[in-house]
Order: sequence, then C-alpha cells, then structure tokens
Amino acid sequence: MHPLQACVEKLGEDRSGDQMYQLIERLFPICRSITGNGLRQSLDIVGEHLPLLRSEVATGTPVFDWTIPKEWNIRDAWIKDPSGQKIVDFQQSNLHVVSYSVPVHGRFSLAELKTRLHSDPAHPEWIPYRTSYYQETWGFCLPHQQLQSLPEGEYEVCIDSELTAGSLSYAECLIPGASQDEVLLFAHICHPSLCNDNLSGVALLVELGKYLRQCQLKWSYRLVFAPATIGSITWLSRNEKLLPQIRGGLIVSVAGDAGPVTYKRSRRGNAQIDRASACMLAERGQQERVLDFSPWGYDERQFCSPGINLPMGRFTRSPNGAYPEYHSSADNLGLVRPEHLQDSLHTVLDILHVMESDTRYQNLFPKGEPQLGRRGLYQMMGGFTNIGELQHALLWVLNYSDGEHSLLDIAEKSHMPYRLLQQAAGLSADAQLLAPLP
Amino acid sequence: MHPLQACVEKLGEDRSGDQMYQLIERLFPICRSITGNGLRQSLDIVGEHLPLLRSEVATGTPVFDWTIPKEWNIRDAWIKDPSGQKIVDFQQSNLHVVSYSVPVHGRFSLAELKTRLHSDPAHPEWIPYRTSYYQETWGFCLPHQQLQSLPEGEYEVCIDSELTAGSLSYAECLIPGASQDEVLLFAHICHPSLCNDNLSGVALLVELGKYLRQCQLKWSYRLVFAPATIGSITWLSRNEKLLPQIRGGLIVSVAGDAGPVTYKRSRRGNAQIDRASACMLAERGQQERVLDFSPWGYDERQFCSPGINLPMGRFTRSPNGAYPEYHSSADNLGLVRPEHLQDSLHTVLDILHVMESDTRYQNLFPKGEPQLGRRGLYQMMGGFTNIGELQHALLWVLNYSDGEHSLLDIAEKSHMPYRLLQQAAGLSADAQLLAPLP
Amino acid sequence: MHPLQACVEKLGEDRSGDQMYQLIERLFPICRSITGNGLRQSLDIVGEHLPLLRSEVATGTPVFDWTIPKEWNIRDAWIKDPSGQKIVDFQQSNLHVVSYSVPVHGRFSLAELKTRLHSDPAHPEWIPYRTSYYQETWGFCLPHQQLQSLPEGEYEVCIDSELTAGSLSYAECLIPGASQDEVLLFAHICHPSLCNDNLSGVALLVELGKYLRQCQLKWSYRLVFAPATIGSITWLSRNEKLLPQIRGGLIVSVAGDAGPVTYKRSRRGNAQIDRASACMLAERGQQERVLDFSPWGYDERQFCSPGINLPMGRFTRSPNGAYPEYHSSADNLGLVRPEHLQDSLHTVLDILHVMESDTRYQNLFPKGEPQLGRRGLYQMMGGFTNIGELQHALLWVLNYSDGEHSLLDIAEKSHMPYRLLQQAAGLSADAQLLAPLP
Repeated sequence: MHPLQACVEKLGEDRSGDQMYQLIERLFPICRSITGNGLRQSLDIVGEHLPLLRSEVATGTPVFDWTIPKEWNIRDAWIKDPSGQKIVDFQQSNLHVVSYSVPVHGRFSLAELKTRLHSDPAHPEWIPYRTSYYQETWGFCLPHQQLQSLPEGEYEVCIDSELTAGSLSYAECLIPGASQDEVLLFAHICHPSLCNDNLSGVALLVELGKYLRQCQLKWSYRLVFAPATIGSITWLSRNEKLLPQIRGGLIVSVAGDAGPVTYKRSRRGNAQIDRASACMLAERGQQERVLDFSPWGYDERQFCSPGINLPMGRFTRSPNGAYPEYHSSADNLGLVRPEHLQDSLHTVLDILHVMESDTRYQNLFPKGEPQLGRRGLYQMMGGFTNIGELQHALLWVLNYSDGEHSLLDIAEKSHMPYRLLQQAAGLSADAQLLAPLP
Repeated sequence: MHPLQACVEKLGEDRSGDQMYQLIERLFPICRSITGNGLRQSLDIVGEHLPLLRSEVATGTPVFDWTIPKEWNIRDAWIKDPSGQKIVDFQQSNLHVVSYSVPVHGRFSLAELKTRLHSDPAHPEWIPYRTSYYQETWGFCLPHQQLQSLPEGEYEVCIDSELTAGSLSYAECLIPGASQDEVLLFAHICHPSLCNDNLSGVALLVELGKYLRQCQLKWSYRLVFAPATIGSITWLSRNEKLLPQIRGGLIVSVAGDAGPVTYKRSRRGNAQIDRASACMLAERGQQERVLDFSPWGYDERQFCSPGINLPMGRFTRSPNGAYPEYHSSADNLGLVRPEHLQDSLHTVLDILHVMESDTRYQNLFPKGEPQLGRRGLYQMMGGFTNIGELQHALLWVLNYSDGEHSLLDIAEKSHMPYRLLQQAAGLSADAQLLAPLP
Repeated sequence: MHPLQACVEKLGEDRSGDQMYQLIERLFPICRSITGNGLRQSLDIVGEHLPLLRSEVATGTPVFDWTIPKEWNIRDAWIKDPSGQKIVDFQQSNLHVVSYSVPVHGRFSLAELKTRLHSDPAHPEWIPYRTSYYQETWGFCLPHQQLQSLPEGEYEVCIDSELTAGSLSYAECLIPGASQDEVLLFAHICHPSLCNDNLSGVALLVELGKYLRQCQLKWSYRLVFAPATIGSITWLSRNEKLLPQIRGGLIVSVAGDAGPVTYKRSRRGNAQIDRASACMLAERGQQERVLDFSPWGYDERQFCSPGINLPMGRFTRSPNGAYPEYHSSADNLGLVRPEHLQDSLHTVLDILHVMESDTRYQNLFPKGEPQLGRRGLYQMMGGFTNIGELQHALLWVLNYSDGEHSLLDIAEKSHMPYRLLQQAAGLSADAQLLAPLP
C-alpha cells in the first residue's frame, strides 16, 4: 500500500475536522490584511504547526507589474453618535473598518459621514467586508439596518491606523519527496475575521501539511500561505525559476461550508491535476461540480495567467462568491463545520493520492488473457452471470496496461473506482502479470 | 470604434427595412428567368443603387460541365376556355407559365391540355412555380382548385415566347477594402414574381452594399447578382483565379419572412465565417439555428462543391423549402416584412463585423494580472461579490491574449458578447496592456 | 449489383431462420464442453454444412499463458435419494453435472451432498449451468426448489466421467475471396444444452457460411468454431502470422432471443467493422445499442487483448448475461425463435456488405455540380420543394467523393441509408461522373 494512501485511510478515525476548526477559532479574531502585524501573527500561528520559511518583501519592491504597497496596521477605530455613544467599534468586529483605511479623527455631520459608510441592503443585518488597498481613503462598514437608523447630528470618528513603509509577509512550507518536482498548494491569508473565505483554506493546508510530513512522498509539496493577488504575484515573481518544477497544484479556500465540493479546472483544462480531481469528484457522483477555467475568482487568476499558466486548479466547496455569507460578518464560526472541513481534507488527499500513485503498467502477458485462476486471481467455479468488482478491475487493468494507459486513464475509461483499479494493479504486479513503467 | 461597427450602430435608427421592401416591390412584377430581358431589367434596377460590372456570356459557351443555354424571352401567354374566356393569363401572374416554355399556339382538348398543367393539391389556391430549363417543353401552372373545375371542351392556348441564341447575364459590385482579399456575397436573381426567394436576398445585398461603400473596410467585398446554379457555375468558371483570395462569404436569400435566422455552415464546417455566424446566432440565443452543410439547397451547392470548396455559408431566415409559401404565388409582397429584412441585414452586418474586426492580441504583461486599478480599468473599492461585465471581459481578453486566441476564440470560450470583448480589448490596447498581432 | 448484396436481397424470401433453428434443435441434446466427444460430435454436424479444417491440440500443449487441459468425457451421472429413486439424472439434462466433474461413485449424507449441489435461488425452477475446468472437483446442479425439498438420509451418487490426456478440438472454414485479407467470424461451441448462448451463434455462422460460399467476395472469410476462452486463445496462439491479414471481424453469439440487436465495439473503438456496425444499427434506429468495448464478455476478451487487439466487435441480440435465462436450463429451444435468428443473420450480412463494398470514389467533375439532367440523373422539371431520396443521395455522393470520403464516411455524414448511397454511386460511376479509387 502506498504511503500516502495509508495516511488517507487512517483519516477515517481522525480528529482532523476538529483540529482544523480549532485553528480557525484561534485565527478568527485577528485583523489580517494584505500586509501588517495581523498577517504576521497569523503566520506565527501557522508556524506552530508546520516548519515555515518566512519572507518579508519591502514596500516599494516591484513584483511583475505591481509594487509592494505600504504596510497597514490598525490599533482601534470607532464612531460615536451625537450623544457620544460608541455605535461602531473595531474591537467588536474588525470588519467595521474598510481595510487599508488611512488614519482619521474628526467630527462629521451625518451627511458627510454617510459618504464613508458601506452596507449591504440585501443582507441588512450583516457587516459587509470592503477594502481599498490601492487608493488611499477611509471608511466604515456596518449593517444596513443600523445605517438607516442613524439620527441626524454630529458624529465623532476615529481610525487609529498607519500606512507606512514596511513589508509584505508570506510563508511557505516545503515537504520534500523523492522527486524535486513539486505539487504547489496555495491558501490566501489576508482576510480579517472571515472563516470560510481564507481561514478554512489555511486550516486545511495546515492539517494537510501535518499529514504529508508523516508520509513517504513521491513529489515534493510546497504549501504557500500569502495574501491574495499581491501575495501570489509576489511569490510568483520571486520564484520564476521554480515554476518548471511544478507538476500541478491547488488553490484552496472556502473549504468549510455545507456546499458540495467544487473543482475549477486549470487554464490548461486537462492537466493531471484536473483529471485527478474530475475523477475523484465523479467517484463522489459530483462530476457536475467540475467547472471550466475562467479568469475570475481567487489566485488562479495569477497562477493561471497566460505567462505563468501553471497546471493548478481551484478547490472549494461553494465557489467563491456563490454563497450568501461571502465577504460579510456572516462568514463566521457558525458557517464552517468540522465535518465539512474533514470532508474537504479527505477529498484533497484523494486527489493528491492520484497525483502520487498514478502509474502506467506494462502487461507482461498481453496476448489473450493471462490465466488468472492458477494465480488465485479468478474464481475457479465458472458460469455465473456476474463476476465481482475486483475481477472486473483486474480485467480492465490488464487489458489497458499496454504502456499507453495509466491507472487514471483506465479509471476514466472504465468508470471504476481508482483505488479498486490500483488494488487490482497491485495484485497483478505481485503476480508478475504487470510491471510498472517509469 | 471600427468603421464597420460605426455603420452597424447607425442602423438602429435606419430606414433600411423600408428601403429593401420598396426595392422588392419594384422588382416583383418583372418576369425573370435564368436568362433574358427580365433578368437584365432587374440588374438595371440593382445598378441604380450600386456600381455594377455587368457580364453577358453567350449561349453555347461551356462553363465547367455545363453550357450556357439559349436565351428565353416571353411577351404573353394565356389559355382560353371552350367559351373563349381567358382563364389563365400571364399578365395576371408570370408564374402561370412554366419558365423556359417554348412557343405554342393551338387548340387542345381538356385531356390533352391537362398533360401540360401543373398545380399543387396541397395548396389548392396557390399557383406553383415550375421550370424546365434544360428540356424543351411548355406548360402552365394554376391553382389546383381551378384545375379541378375546368369543363370539358376545346381550349385555345398561346405562349408567345422565344428561345434563341443570346446570353446569360449577371452583375457584380466590388467594394474595395484595405486588403485585396475578398468576402463574397451571392444572391440569386432568376425567379419571377417571388419575394422571399430571390428578391429578399437581392434587396439585402443592395442595402448591404450601400452601407459597405460608406465604410472603411479591411477586406474587399464582392456582391454577385446572378441566376441560381447556372449563374454561380458561370461566375465560378470565369473567376477561378480569384478564388484563393476569397476569405469567406455568404449565399443570401429568404431574408424577409417571419422565421428565425438560419445559418448553414460551409462544407469546411468551421471556417471563420462559420464561427462568426455561429457566435452571432448564439448571442441571439439561436445557436440551434446553425445547420451543418448538406449538398442541397441554394448556390452553396456550387460554391461548396468539392473542387471549389469556398468557405461560404448560407444565410436565410426560414431555410429554403421550409416554409409553405416556397415556390408559389403565396411568396408575395405579403410574406416579407420590412422589419424582418432589417433584422436580417443587421445580423449579416454583425457577422461581417466579426470578419472585419477579429484580431489576436498579445498581452504585454502576461505574468500575473497587470494592475488594472492604477490604469483606471478596475474598481478601486474591493470585496464585492460581483464585478461588472466589462471587468469580466477585460479579464477574459487579458488572460487569453496569448498570441493564440483571437477575439472570436475568446467569445467562444467565455460566452461573452463579442462586442463587449472587443471593447475590453480596445481599452486594454489603449492602456498599452495589449498589442494587436498581424 | 454487388454479389454479396445480391445474396442479401435474396434472403427476403429465404428459409434461413428455420434452417438455423433446425440446426440448433439437432445440436441441443449433445453434452459439449471445452474438450471431448460432445464437442467433436458438434463439429461433425457443422461439417455436414460447411467444409471444415479440423484441429486437435494435445493436452499439455502450451497456448500463450495457458495449457491445453485434459480431455473430459462423460457417459452418465445421477443421484439416488434414500429410497433409491433417481432424483437427478444426466440423461434428463446434461446441465445437471458441473462441467469437467471428476468421476465419483459413493454414498453421502444430505449434509455432505449439499456441499456439492448448485442451484439458483433467484430462479428456483431452473437448473443453473456451472463449470470447473481448472480445478478438479465434482458437483451437480439442480433447481433450487428441488434442493430445498430433499429429505434427510443417505444418497447414492454416480458420475461416470473421465479426465484423460486427449486433445482440444476446433474447426474453421475458410471461404476465399479476391483478397487474401480476411474477415474473421468466431462462435464458441463449448456449452452443453444451451441454445441462445453458443448454439445460436454456431447456427448463424453455419448459415452465413452457406451464403458466403455462393458469393463472389472481395475479402476472404474465416469462420471459427471453437471453445470459449481456451479455444480462442488456442486459435490465436497457432495463427499469429495470420493476424495482420485480419481486416475485421465479429464474435457472434446470443443471436436468437427476442432482444434487440447489440453491437459491442472492438477495443480500437472506431475500426471499420465498428463503424459499419454502428451505421447499420443506426439505420435500424438502434444506435443506442452500440456499446463501448469493455474487457469482459465473450471471446472479445481474447481477440481484443492488448497484444492481439484485432478490429473485432461482438454481435449479439441481448448482451451476454443480460437476459434472465442466461446460463440456465431456461436457455432452451423455447428461448430462440427462427425470426430472431433470421433478423440476426440479415444484420450480420448488412454489416459484412459494408465491409465488402465500402469504396472511395473520385468525383471527375468536382467544380460545381455536374449537369445531372442531361445524363438522365435529375428530374427535368424544376421548382419542387423536395427532390427524391435518390437525388439527395446523388448529391451527397458527388459532393463528398473528394478522394477522402468513402461511402461509409458519407453515410455517417449524411445519415442516408448506405445502400441508397451505394446505388447513387453506382449510377454516377455508370455515368462516368465518379471513378472508384483503389
């Protein structure tokens, strides 16, 4: 049995769902952005679980067409109403402040203030999440129903933030395998108190890393934790030489909600990671959840840009933007559940298992069927209407092990479970019927 | 904005539908055939609108496997019943005479006469349209109900026609563009008083030619007005050297009825004209109206014969033969409507617009996304669930402008409107993000 | 008209269904197995109808990965109940004995006996068919309801069989054609009293052979009658040099039941035999009965093994195993009907007709349409909404006879009946419009 497969099968009794959920709970309160101390603190916590290579890239550094922005940090922010009561408070929810808001302290009429307030009329009880990374401004987010109930009068506003030369932070964990070729896994970690969007992906990669470190691996695995967009662009611009070694990978986020698993193909469309993912989703009866590539979404926008074009797909449950709580205060600890996180982890491990184990075999007795019975691989009594699934799998593996078809090819042709075919190939190899090809 | 596109957008308020209808009204009464004065007179009228190169090809001239037939002209024809009353009269409808009938004047019993009479029992009130170009005979067409009510007795019959050495006439209008490569548009003009079949195509090409002459064009456009079958064969046999320059084209007819637009692919199946037409029909939600090539129909039979095989599709509303009034007196001025003619013209212009404007671009910042925000091409406030359609189009155009995909390719992949993608490409090119490829 | 086609058309009035049924009646009582006198006797009867080349391959001979087993013969077998009454009797049905049972004579308690008894609870009135070719054992098969009603007590059991060094028998009939290239047709003939499974295929091949011998053939035809699995493996191992000459073929069985015709593609998937069969099933409106290859079923497992990979499909009515009577005493003379046998034979002849006649033609007048009218190939009166099917076929054949498309290609493109296209091609060739390509 393949080492990664062994790990995967142990997961049946694992506590990975709870562990991921606990990590999300711990990361949830921190105010992350695309730079700053909240991001660093989050990477510190990830570093308690995995050995990390940390990077800091100074403000002003060019990265492809972009430039590392100033670093943003915030201590506090609030709005006091005309009676002096604090009605919006950053300490209650870091979503209240538009990310990257410049500092402000002053008094404003309600009309003036309203030009700085953001709400979502479609979900009047939720605080929306808004950012303004590349245009210096400030603003607050609040529930629409609160916005509508604000009385006339003068409001006192304070944002105790700073935008200064500093650096952008990211971290990566390299888990070496037999080959220096790599599988790249990416989770963005730049959103403040949002659970499904960003923290579920971070937690899944942490838990995945812990498993992979216990396995004997064929490929090396690189887990990257970085801000979205500017973070993946930065990582790519600093690792161009590495890119030819990347055999495939996944952008992972939105891994904890109740929606079914969704896989979005890489720009290449039919890379091994795409086929492995489609095969695993088909086994779950969810082949309709395999989406074609489009240049909109998460960091596949960067990893699958035309000059990069890595074979990386995107793994989520609900697609980004396709659940009502997306980018709001409702994407909280109640939206993600340990069982969904665990199911996501298992599916990712299933996909990686195919990446690790897919092999072409050569049938050593290709003329006619080999006599399976005398090798104990076939029922001795004949005449039955049906043979078992394993016997079917044996016949499929033997017939298509012509040097051109891998196990994944055979799974696609036969619609039989990949692991069953793998088991049949193992039995056949043990019986000297098949030889693995390099 | 592209010159042709500018023309197209002006059409919103145009009077093209009425103008096409008026031209049909004027051409309707003329008795056309595949040769003769009616055909010449029709080409004269077309020549009032467009500068035409006229051709006359003498009777007996070989054209591929065919020979130019004798010229047919007719002055009058009638049948008088036993009481001497004129019951069938060419002056009432030129459909009454089988086209190419030889002259006759004599008296016939009803039984003798009936061997010369043609009617359509399925539509007993309509006069059918019949021809006998290549077998010398004569005959009359009349409503089936009239045929059935004819009393016994002796009938006097007269067809005052002549079949003589003469010539076959056709005309073409060349509208030069920047390139000598051509788009070829063909309408047959050999049917007598039939509106949808032949006149609607003639009128559409006339109106199209008037527009194209006002545009700055990339390709040259050649509009050919000729008889069906023998006319297209004649044109092809005399223009073989020109054929390699033809980049695409359309056979146009049946453009005025209420049926939805139909496009029939060229024999090549996936030529640029096929893809442009399919894309435009898909934008109209009518992708199911794109038919595969078959060697039966209009002059695509000649333009798509195996030794010619031009990338020419067929544009109609109802396919030929697929409406009850086809080839009968019911294909009259009531069957075609200005609004359908205008819709047809707009669709043809949409298709030609793609032919004119389809371009491959090179993304000059292909590694990661270029920073659109600082170029004013992206909303500065982030976090929203949806971005606008134009922003999507920008991302599609940037991602697939890898030197391999043209705007039409991107439209097929993205299912976004071609013009929106074209607009996004224009904005990107203006911002120096894209460079057009030759 | 092509010689094979002539034969096929004579079949309309033939008595082939009855003849096949009578042959099945005669073969039915014989106790066949994969070796032995029952098999030889069956081949003798086949030899009364067709000239056969008989082969005997000695026990112990290696054939690919297998070895010819001992020869099995049986004279009698029975079970007597405690009262001495014969309750299971080989003379009543040869299915009662597990095929290849070793000899036994002794007394057994009911409990001991039951370990040797096989029944099918899903069909309690039927005797199932069981074999144990490669593990020496013995056993009886009986209806499940009888098994359940057996009283306690001592049973006397006798199987008067022998397993001795001998040989495996098979036979083939080669019907020479103009080419030495062959079409291979295979029927297994190793099942005892089972009609649909084995005898229907044998009878179909016999009747087919009788027809083919009366025809002037392009290809040579080889009909092989051999045991399943070990028989096809043996034939293949002894005819490896012949394999490159095999242009296509069919494994034929289950040809007499009421189910619709089913074709299972060869491993190659789109060989000429696959396309010919799919085309013929499509003409019958049964395109959904064309199955993809899978390495499970009849002797396609051997003929389509990866080191052999012949272009051979499988022809059946119900697929093997997909009818309730499969491998039971209910697969008897009542399950197969002359009319189904005849329909199967006609369909196989249709498929072979395509193999024989498929031709590429060159259109000698490829520029425009040739003038069909003056060659008597087109109606002289024009203007009709529809032309006849033959005229359509003429246009299809002429348009696609560009040297690249054969009649079968054109049938696939046009969805017109193959024979109609063939007729059109014949008329065109007679008129010197088409020339056949080698």
